[in-house]
Amino acid sequence: MIADTVRTSTYRTGIFRNSSSIQGKVVLDVGAGTGVLSIFCAQAGARKVYAVEASSIADQAVKIVKHNKMEDIIEVIKGTLETIDLPEHVDVIVSEWMGYALLHESMLNSVLFARDKWLKPGGLILPSKAELYIAPINDLVVEDRLIFWNTVKDQYGVDMSCMSDFARKCIMNNDITVNLVTVEDVLSHPCKFAELDLYSVTVEQLNSVSGAFKCECFGSSPVNALCVWFTVTFPGGEEKPLVLSTSPFKPETHWKQAVLYLDNPVDVRQDTKVVGDIKMYPSEESSRHICIHLDCTIGEQKKHSKTFSIPDGYSGECQQ
Amino acid sequence: MIADTVRTSTYRTGIFRNSSSIQGKVVLDVGAGTGVLSIFCAQAGARKVYAVEASSIADQAVKIVKHNKMEDIIEVIKGTLETIDLPEHVDVIVSEWMGYALLHESMLNSVLFARDKWLKPGGLILPSKAELYIAPINDLVVEDRLIFWNTVKDQYGVDMSCMSDFARKCIMNNDITVNLVTVEDVLSHPCKFAELDLYSVTVEQLNSVSGAFKCECFGSSPVNALCVWFTVTFPGGEEKPLVLSTSPFKPETHWKQAVLYLDNPVDVRQDTKVVGDIKMYPSEESSRHICIHLDCTIGEQKKHSKTFSIPDGYSGECQQ
Repeated sequence: MIADTVRTSTYRTGIFRNSSSIQGKVVLDVGAGTGVLSIFCAQAGARKVYAVEASSIADQAVKIVKHNKMEDIIEVIKGTLETIDLPEHVDVIVSEWMGYALLHESMLNSVLFARDKWLKPGGLILPSKAELYIAPINDLVVEDRLIFWNTVKDQYGVDMSCMSDFARKCIMNNDITVNLVTVEDVLSHPCKFAELDLYSVTVEQLNSVSGAFKCECFGSSPVNALCVWFTVTFPGGEEKPLVLSTSPFKPETHWKQAVLYLDNPVDVRQDTKVVGDIKMYPSEESSRHICIHLDCTIGEQKKHSKTFSIPDGYSGECQQ
Repeated sequence: MIADTVRTSTYRTGIFRNSSSIQGKVVLDVGAGTGVLSIFCAQAGARKVYAVEASSIADQAVKIVKHNKMEDIIEVIKGTLETIDLPEHVDVIVSEWMGYALLHESMLNSVLFARDKWLKPGGLILPSKAELYIAPINDLVVEDRLIFWNTVKDQYGVDMSCMSDFARKCIMNNDITVNLVTVEDVLSHPCKFAELDLYSVTVEQLNSVSGAFKCECFGSSPVNALCVWFTVTFPGGEEKPLVLSTSPFKPETHWKQAVLYLDNPVDVRQDTKVVGDIKMYPSEESSRHICIHLDCTIGEQKKHSKTFSIPDGYSGECQQ
């Protein structure tokens, strides 16, 4: 994921802005991967960095740390955060723990475990806050795929317009679809529906991350989905806080956005209200997978309830 | 797959070119899907079309046939070709049976079963021939991904060049990668290594579809993969035969190409010979999945042997 320049650059800047709190201090990197964040912390003046990584990528991190002559500062520990032992408490926790839709296959539980077990009172967590946003969208790719069946007659002389309903059910399904949302498709200002303060949030609270939202549409359009994304914020040290955003209004990241399709497109006009409640919680089959339950009312329509989950195959190893 | 215009248009033309053989005749459509090929045959003058489809999409085909007022000609039969019964033998078999790399999750076995059980002597099969091709390529996306690790130092001040070897193993793996190959990446003329005559090929012969190849490179380049694709040919009726090609030299189709990565890039020059043998056969775990075994010698290098398979998740329902 180092090829995601928004992610890597923002973490680098976020770490360097806090160098006055890192200088001469002890850092714990939770889920260190290739160790790039540990190296940033060492460059920012850390006295010691513990880079904890459970997967075999830890072997690569060892090589990279040596290659960068930082083996005196950075100690790569291959193991799970919950079972390893550290020789000391730490001043700073750094972690890139976010998954799709913030919480899908995230490592936030491990970060909180690390905080409660290893962080000194008054210690620093980077990033220190996460926020979740929602907005109604009209996904034009989906609209095209639905209209497609009406075009087959002109193209091939076969009337397939009766497929529209079947196609709609196939496309506007119960999957959380991870996709890049085009900014032109977003139909309102973002509405924040939840915020996690990493200093105080508990593992129990992660079992239900929920909130209400109310969006007012920009203008006339069909709405065929709601779109969810997140930001994380680094405290600013002596400068202003720094936000890593996965918003469709900002440059793209590998997290893209999470798209929740309605059952049917609904027409809205300027100032039509899209209001509702959204709840994110671990799936029963796998606690690392998330489900999203959405209750939503669009304008005068009756309330629409739907539960979504991420299909298998949305995580990969060996990525840059 | 109707949105794949190369596929749909070529089938339509291939059927219409053979209308003299279809007029007033009985057709069997193997794996009819939405029934579009059955409708083309009815439009070409078929007296009767049996549209056999095992999946639930058959229910959509029934609707589409009615919607196009062809229920007197086209009979949709929901069932597997191997178990259904027809009231008569047929003059023509039409089928869009091809999978990735021609044979992955293909329905060719069912077409051959239909041929042996239901086709009248001298009957027509559309398409009637399949051919497999190979050529060495230099996948520039992979090259970029390997070079990437050498660029991290300039971008972030962390030397990650020691990741190149690990990244190469991750990328140049044993997967058959289904990808669009850019024509500029192809390093020789295509070499045909196998041909299937649908009138004579047997199910047993599909257990090992193999051949030798010899390509001569256009010029100096690294080779990091071999690329496999196929064509199928429709007899021409009174016109010349018609080829549906999935070649990287032709307009793209949803089949794309099948890319087989070497373990390491190898440098070639003009006229360097890439010679070898390739064998396609059903995987032991699932007879509908294919494996490809490649023996290949590039220039003066020693022989390179590698076995590939398609990772799970390369087939989808609900596609246009």
